[in-house]
Amino acid sequence: MPKNQIKKALIPAAGFGTRLFPATKVVKKELFPIIDQDGRVKPVIQLIVEEAISAGIEEIGIIVQPEDKRIFIDLFKYPPKAELFEKLSPENQKHSKHIVDLGDKIKFLPQKEQAGYGHAVYCAKEWVDNQPFLLMLGDHIYASDIKKSCARQVLEVYAQQNKSVVGLTKIPAEIIHKAGCVTGVWQKHNSILSLTQVYEKPTVEYARQHLRVEGIAENEFLSIFGLYALTPMIFDFLEENINNNFRERSEFQLTTCLEKVRQVEGMVGYLVQGKSFDIGMPDAYLQTLIDFRNR
Amino acid sequence: MPKNQIKKALIPAAGFGTRLFPATKVVKKELFPIIDQDGRVKPVIQLIVEEAISAGIEEIGIIVQPEDKRIFIDLFKYPPKAELFEKLSPENQKHSKHIVDLGDKIKFLPQKEQAGYGHAVYCAKEWVDNQPFLLMLGDHIYASDIKKSCARQVLEVYAQQNKSVVGLTKIPAEIIHKAGCVTGVWQKHNSILSLTQVYEKPTVEYARQHLRVEGIAENEFLSIFGLYALTPMIFDFLEENINNNFRERSEFQLTTCLEKVRQVEGMVGYLVQGKSFDIGMPDAYLQTLIDFRNR
Repeated sequence: MPKNQIKKALIPAAGFGTRLFPATKVVKKELFPIIDQDGRVKPVIQLIVEEAISAGIEEIGIIVQPEDKRIFIDLFKYPPKAELFEKLSPENQKHSKHIVDLGDKIKFLPQKEQAGYGHAVYCAKEWVDNQPFLLMLGDHIYASDIKKSCARQVLEVYAQQNKSVVGLTKIPAEIIHKAGCVTGVWQKHNSILSLTQVYEKPTVEYARQHLRVEGIAENEFLSIFGLYALTPMIFDFLEENINNNFRERSEFQLTTCLEKVRQVEGMVGYLVQGKSFDIGMPDAYLQTLIDFRNR
Repeated sequence: MPKNQIKKALIPAAGFGTRLFPATKVVKKELFPIIDQDGRVKPVIQLIVEEAISAGIEEIGIIVQPEDKRIFIDLFKYPPKAELFEKLSPENQKHSKHIVDLGDKIKFLPQKEQAGYGHAVYCAKEWVDNQPFLLMLGDHIYASDIKKSCARQVLEVYAQQNKSVVGLTKIPAEIIHKAGCVTGVWQKHNSILSLTQVYEKPTVEYARQHLRVEGIAENEFLSIFGLYALTPMIFDFLEENINNNFRERSEFQLTTCLEKVRQVEGMVGYLVQGKSFDIGMPDAYLQTLIDFRNR
């Protein structure tokens, strides 16, 4: 096995999908349908799992609300019921086996109390078992601009650098107040950045003063893409916040802890050659469906 | 109450969604998300129920597979769980009550064995209780071109004519082999047609010879829209087919029975002023999402 190869991926999928209410009253957003290039309609989570596997990941932990565990198990651990299976085309009968094969690599990890994204990640501490791991958002899907998948690009930078890597993308100034942003110094121009700050939801004023990155257009900043390769030190800081009940906007956040890991171990940003599609808001979900089908 | 006013609507929602596999392995197609004009993401079935209520319907029967009853009950009969409810905007907390109000008008009717669309409709025989009723497809949604909703248009034609009404739309010759088609004589040009034949999935040759309608373009035919106002006689013919195990393409079909009702009681077609959106196939679902959001 190559040195520094990450084998585990973690996908938090335990949110409420508040912004997609009322559909999320009965359908988890991670199960929302997306039409793949081949015309198959897949649940979002399947595409994320396939992205992880394409990157060489061997074990996947999905953080779920305990009451949702059943439906994720139905998806990944069992074939469809016989009456449906009989009606499937031979290709889809084969695809059905592919899904259960994915399931062999998946473990479901319960988040018993919903207390924010950082708290969700912390629930996987034992399963991650002190190894570096790939963290993937449960409501984003990815399309690479090159042959190598987005997740694999991030993992290869980790293998090379042997420190935490945050996948990055360029976003316009108008939306940085909703995003995690970074700044730093290019190690490799327009590709690998030694991070000097990770900052959650900056104002435009703060960003203009503190988060500019050399060579990035006046009105753009570097923001978190949704894929991270992290060392297990993140759990130390999450634990500290949880033990001290240190919440931001009433929840345990991840970004503050990323910044602390950066301060201790260093961290690089990697400008992913690809697109990150959000499905967590109505019109973003619609745009994702269109773009993902037509890419 | 006006004479001939239909009070009950029936929505079959017990299919497998085979063409939307693998998403339908864990999400019923009737629960697929659709973004409404106001930006809310609603399950398909909610839009269909709202269409029925907008037409003055007082009671709705939804045919479901027994194992799916729970999830439909969760959607329509209960508020969301407290943790989700607390996170909703005040508008969505109000909307949550609106959904449960819809639920007060809904009864779930089990189809224990999946044996075709005609069989699903037959499962509601007792509930319909010998009254005329509105039949709505579970995988179509509707957008009216005028102020009056599509369902109301159909119900008003029923009230006026006091015989079964089939909502119609124009479709190109290339797709009639997948559709239920009709022919007849205009009572009111481009609006109400006295039907002389109802025919399921004709070949183009058959249609050109037998299903032409005066004033309809050379390459177009009249096809079933997905909304019907039916007299209870339909159950007699469905029962006859089921008792005699008369299946077409291995299932009990509706269209053959519609043609029999037409022969005995007469039937009119009504060219609906609006569009019918299919969600039962991948690209049709995507197109529906786009068109429904942008109408």
